[in-house]
Amino acid sequence: MHRYRSHTCAQLRKADVGQTVRLSGWVHRVRDHGGLLFIDLRDHYGLTQIVADPDSPCFKIAETVRGEWVIRVDGEVKERLADTANANLPTGEIEIFAKEMEVLSAAKELPLPVFGEPDYPEDIRLKYRFLDLRRDTLHKNIVQRTKIIAEMRKRMNESAFTEFSTPILTASSPEGARDFLVPSRIHPGTFYALPQAPQQYKQLIMVSGFDRYFQIAPCFRDEDPRADRLPGEFYQLDLEMSFVEQEDILQTMEPVLRGVFETFAEGKPVTQSFPRIKYDDAIRKYGSDKPDLRNPIEMQAVSEHFAGSGFKVFAGILANDPKAEVWAIPAKTGGSRAFCDRMNSWAQGEGQPGLGYIFWRKEGDKIEGAGPIAKNIGEERTEAIRQQLGLEDGDSAFFVAGNPAKFYKFAGDARTRAGEELNLVDREQFALCWIIDFPFFEWNEDEKKIDFAHNPFSMPQGGIEALNGQDPLSIKAFQYDMVCNGFEIASGGIRNHLPETMVKAFEMVGLSRETVEERFGGLYRAFQYGAPPHGGMAAGVDRVVMLLCGAKNLREITMFPMNQQAYDLLMGAPSEATPQQLRELELRTAPKKKD
Amino acid sequence: MHRYRSHTCAQLRKADVGQTVRLSGWVHRVRDHGGLLFIDLRDHYGLTQIVADPDSPCFKIAETVRGEWVIRVDGEVKERLADTANANLPTGEIEIFAKEMEVLSAAKELPLPVFGEPDYPEDIRLKYRFLDLRRDTLHKNIVQRTKIIAEMRKRMNESAFTEFSTPILTASSPEGARDFLVPSRIHPGTFYALPQAPQQYKQLIMVSGFDRYFQIAPCFRDEDPRADRLPGEFYQLDLEMSFVEQEDILQTMEPVLRGVFETFAEGKPVTQSFPRIKYDDAIRKYGSDKPDLRNPIEMQAVSEHFAGSGFKVFAGILANDPKAEVWAIPAKTGGSRAFCDRMNSWAQGEGQPGLGYIFWRKEGDKIEGAGPIAKNIGEERTEAIRQQLGLEDGDSAFFVAGNPAKFYKFAGDARTRAGEELNLVDREQFALCWIIDFPFFEWNEDEKKIDFAHNPFSMPQGGIEALNGQDPLSIKAFQYDMVCNGFEIASGGIRNHLPETMVKAFEMVGLSRETVEERFGGLYRAFQYGAPPHGGMAAGVDRVVMLLCGAKNLREITMFPMNQQAYDLLMGAPSEATPQQLRELELRTAPKKKD
Repeated sequence: MHRYRSHTCAQLRKADVGQTVRLSGWVHRVRDHGGLLFIDLRDHYGLTQIVADPDSPCFKIAETVRGEWVIRVDGEVKERLADTANANLPTGEIEIFAKEMEVLSAAKELPLPVFGEPDYPEDIRLKYRFLDLRRDTLHKNIVQRTKIIAEMRKRMNESAFTEFSTPILTASSPEGARDFLVPSRIHPGTFYALPQAPQQYKQLIMVSGFDRYFQIAPCFRDEDPRADRLPGEFYQLDLEMSFVEQEDILQTMEPVLRGVFETFAEGKPVTQSFPRIKYDDAIRKYGSDKPDLRNPIEMQAVSEHFAGSGFKVFAGILANDPKAEVWAIPAKTGGSRAFCDRMNSWAQGEGQPGLGYIFWRKEGDKIEGAGPIAKNIGEERTEAIRQQLGLEDGDSAFFVAGNPAKFYKFAGDARTRAGEELNLVDREQFALCWIIDFPFFEWNEDEKKIDFAHNPFSMPQGGIEALNGQDPLSIKAFQYDMVCNGFEIASGGIRNHLPETMVKAFEMVGLSRETVEERFGGLYRAFQYGAPPHGGMAAGVDRVVMLLCGAKNLREITMFPMNQQAYDLLMGAPSEATPQQLRELELRTAPKKKD
Repeated sequence: MHRYRSHTCAQLRKADVGQTVRLSGWVHRVRDHGGLLFIDLRDHYGLTQIVADPDSPCFKIAETVRGEWVIRVDGEVKERLADTANANLPTGEIEIFAKEMEVLSAAKELPLPVFGEPDYPEDIRLKYRFLDLRRDTLHKNIVQRTKIIAEMRKRMNESAFTEFSTPILTASSPEGARDFLVPSRIHPGTFYALPQAPQQYKQLIMVSGFDRYFQIAPCFRDEDPRADRLPGEFYQLDLEMSFVEQEDILQTMEPVLRGVFETFAEGKPVTQSFPRIKYDDAIRKYGSDKPDLRNPIEMQAVSEHFAGSGFKVFAGILANDPKAEVWAIPAKTGGSRAFCDRMNSWAQGEGQPGLGYIFWRKEGDKIEGAGPIAKNIGEERTEAIRQQLGLEDGDSAFFVAGNPAKFYKFAGDARTRAGEELNLVDREQFALCWIIDFPFFEWNEDEKKIDFAHNPFSMPQGGIEALNGQDPLSIKAFQYDMVCNGFEIASGGIRNHLPETMVKAFEMVGLSRETVEERFGGLYRAFQYGAPPHGGMAAGVDRVVMLLCGAKNLREITMFPMNQQAYDLLMGAPSEATPQQLRELELRTAPKKKD
């Protein structure tokens, strides 16, 4: 018989009754029922119940074992009595009558329990991560994570992509977030950087003549602690294709991601054909470029009904600012004064002056609008608004006025709030869409100049002609996001593979040709020697896993995370370097003077 | 029709003749046959021949294109005349008569050619890696590499392993090679380290209750330039299993690796059942723990035939040192004085006093030994040696005497030399074996103390009893290597999961319990709370790929390597940090004073 086990702790069934078996695992729980000992033995695969009574030759040892000891048990498979069988456990119809028991590894008193799922302070859990990971939910999440990533790989391979690894010790890249640096010992005084993303490398792979690259890529950003990001590293499903247009990427990746969601959705519906929503439309309808489409509310502009109306605040805003608009947030079933007042109070809590509303109710045969705004604009305009929004008795609408560029975020929050408060959101689904036609540039109010709105490597729609002739802020990029349930889960673009167009775009945000050459030398050089049109995207692995595991915290889906202060409490990192290490790197730590 | 292509450059066949198609790709080569232009168009998938004659509407454009320009071509598929068909090309029976041509990206004059495979200086190739990678052999090697890694993944998944990623920003670990450090900005003056291998993490994964972990793991070692290692990073197929003994790992991994080799061996034989060779036997038979088993020569001890013999040098050595032995390197077909003298000269070139030999030839009915040694030891002993080694007319044997610990490497080199010179080595095969029973400790002559011979985390055979009672240098470890054609391709061990045994082992090399706690705190702590017996191994991905691609240089199987001086010439790394970066990290570069 094998030294440690003939079966795993998830394998034995009624058909095995009578067999002599050997199991090894952790003592999940010990119960003493009046001299009869029940031990739940746990391994990676499952649980099996062990029984020892005072007649058992190993009873003396069995009495000594405690939670999380690792033991080996030899015994006979017995059928459980019908009333003690456990239908929730695959092995619940049998138990092992222990004949021999060996302690493979004892455990000291546990700093946190493994049995059960009590709340424990984060830092204890991270320092003793090897115990925390034995807990059922975390163990399941981590296994689920690996399955989701394996499924991504499988579907990418089936879609004729090839997995390439790109270097992790590379050049500092001044775009985007802050780099982690790695001092060079062989060339003291200089530094490598860890990649924020393999963006330049994957484009270089295309210029090198390969096609359909992908990678489950580790990425590194030295950011200040954020609730929705772990410090340090994260993973992307990164991909790139040659000789493609935007539509090719969308049509290639939509089935891949839909398939991944469907595989792990546990029966929840997944959007079959992802709507393609223009960025401008997403802002107008949802107040966000990451709309949660589980919320059925769509906003509409209703400016005409307020222009010159008796509601002087809105009429005045519209009269004084040609960019001003009034948007309505229709709220089905929200037609009570109490609800409308709650929304108004919420808005004030958000720092807004308030949130105007109309609610409709049946008065005899007629549906009538109520509330201060309805009174001020009169019956006809109130009815026109109701008609436009398709509202009925028992519904309401909220109104926001001003320059949409300034209020759309708040309007989007109000939409979310109304949808959630009224239970209009069906949470048990994965609602996916594409957001397309992002603006290429944005206005930097602080520096009074235009900046890249997103990825500087994207191709502007209309190419160099657009850059030369069009109002810069009206230029769109071949850039797209994939959004699920209000989270951006992927982002991509068709790249600008034409060096002159690249230089022109950078010049427009105030960066010279020399700067491009200096900062993006490898890529810029490559584009001079025959570059194919190409594009791709990157999906956030952690976010997809969180959605599919229903996890709220990245630490619930990451095996060995750092804490929010960027400490690895398990391994004790970061730590001081030895004087010899610093000498070899020709570095000195130079603490800032404390004031 | 698609904007860029209806087919790839590897797709079209005779059945497609008459179709109007669109292709995009790089201009591999242009030939002008008296006004008739032939363009070989290349993409990731293959080559297709394009033809344009002066009647072609795009002839003017076709005349302008040069090597490595990226173009789109519309045209009609035509059958090539029988005498112009190219049987070496899958598309060789057709060509495209060009009707329309668009330049998607022009190329400047090339710093190195893509067509053909001329030798070019390494640094030019690395700076313009995107051109180098377009060359046929390199492109094929990189694609092969990705296929080999995909095959490893597939077979590991099929063997019920689960892929987990381990952190890349982690703690400095003082064992083994030098760490790359990453300064922490949030905790200035402290450093993360990049993992030399996920050794501690994979053991922690087992202690965390998971089983059968694997990872294609990036590893980082800050080593001085070595011909057989790229600076910086390399990849391992890393794995670990719980509740196993050595034999389980060997039986699990042998079919995985054998399968990978068979898949890519292109018909070359692959060892079906890997011999298990004890370390001590490998040293005695092959003079190496990485024996090339394609070489059939096995050395044997022949001390008894020299003890007290007339060959005074060897007899004296044996008489004066109880550890001394004489080893024979039998050399089938090496029985000419010329060959023996060549071997002797080679040995002198290696700094040895010489290499004694006997060669046998038929004299009448008798096989007689010849050469100075045969003369000195006489006919009887010479014949006894021949009998022991199983040599015949036309064979020879070489002899090395002294303390085997000091001469075995040279003896192994002589074995290699003889096998190669005599063409005894059948190169067209993959000869695999396991080396087992490595010594646990070794003698450190400089510091006059024992050290760990290999992995300090391995379990000593005999456990803590062996550590307490046995001559330390006689203790073996549950540690094993997999060797192919003379290269170590994998290494592993059963781990020491018992904290007291771990402390005892470290104490024996002079490291205290406190040092263990400080250096390996995470793992040492974990072993206190229920650790399963576990073990695993790690295979060198790069080495396996090199063997299977027949590549001699790591840069031929790595997409974006650094040069031997640890410079990334493509991206320009390492480079100076900005003053702001150094300020944020509270670091100062402190160049050493030059003498």
